[in-house]
Amino acid sequence: MSRWEPEARERLVRAALDLFADQGYDRTTVAEIAERAGLTKSTFFRYFPDKREVLAAGQDTLCKLIEEGIATAPTSATPLDAVEAALDAASTAFIPERRDLGKKMYAAIATSSELQERDALKRLELANAMERALENRGFDETTASLAAELGILALKRAQRNWSKSTNSTAFRDIARQSLQELRAANAKLS
Amino acid sequence: MSRWEPEARERLVRAALDLFADQGYDRTTVAEIAERAGLTKSTFFRYFPDKREVLAAGQDTLCKLIEEGIATAPTSATPLDAVEAALDAASTAFIPERRDLGKKMYAAIATSSELQERDALKRLELANAMERALENRGFDETTASLAAELGILALKRAQRNWSKSTNSTAFRDIARQSLQELRAANAKLS
Repeated sequence: MSRWEPEARERLVRAALDLFADQGYDRTTVAEIAERAGLTKSTFFRYFPDKREVLAAGQDTLCKLIEEGIATAPTSATPLDAVEAALDAASTAFIPERRDLGKKMYAAIATSSELQERDALKRLELANAMERALENRGFDETTASLAAELGILALKRAQRNWSKSTNSTAFRDIARQSLQELRAANAKLS
Repeated sequence: MSRWEPEARERLVRAALDLFADQGYDRTTVAEIAERAGLTKSTFFRYFPDKREVLAAGQDTLCKLIEEGIATAPTSATPLDAVEAALDAASTAFIPERRDLGKKMYAAIATSSELQERDALKRLELANAMERALENRGFDETTASLAAELGILALKRAQRNWSKSTNSTAFRDIARQSLQELRAANAKLS
């Protein structure tokens, strides 16, 4: 990989989301995305198999961060402590410069059932990654599965709140608050 | 609708799942599904927009049952009591004659990323239906969202266990046990 590649990927994501917002997801072509990003179609296809996969950009990174966060949590960590460590680690992907991307992504998803599907799969894949990481920590399958659902719910809610926020609160603080709210609600589900 | 239509729908689902198992999802055509079911292609399209949607057969019924179960739960119900009422209501869709369909559906999903996506969306839609029904009962959004995730996790686990079971335990009992296990695990997530 050349040292410019990460930048190209991000430019493609930005161009795609802008076009989805301007003219709709269905009417946007890969050629238009590449052109808007100042790149070629074949560069686009080096990063994404099709325009829909732009939505899943960063998914692998996020899975890896979640796994690392859980693997390196203190040995005394409860399941939800481990989830918090995963969210802390994941937060490093949500740098301030990307906050507007989240907003654009939500707007695009709202208008396209194809993107809603891709987003649902993304969520399931993140939950599976978190569940496996928790099992690797020795938590039983039922506990891991439940804690992972709660963790991904916290992550999704944090992403939504972050993309809506108008101040510069760090993603990590928003994610921690989101998890805290769910922990509090969870204690009263009975 | 003629009185035979519900039967036609189920025949199409069975034919589709058999063909997916025999020759793979990708290589199965709508014409083949209709032929195997002893029906015409145009009958197929009266029930499903495409072959993938066979996977979502019964989704609307399930959403309705979940909503009814929650709406008619006793006024004293806790969030998870209401979820249990939803699962009890949903159980009426899982009659013994359909147990083999579940097994075939899992087999098909395992082999096709298109079907995995449809399944992920189905899960999200069921969770949304449950969440809305819980909000209508007056539970706050955070609580409703969390209880719905737990409820749909219980339902998915029950479906998996039911399709694997070798005795004639009723779906309702399996679903209740599945929810009970998650409740117990939830008490120890801290």
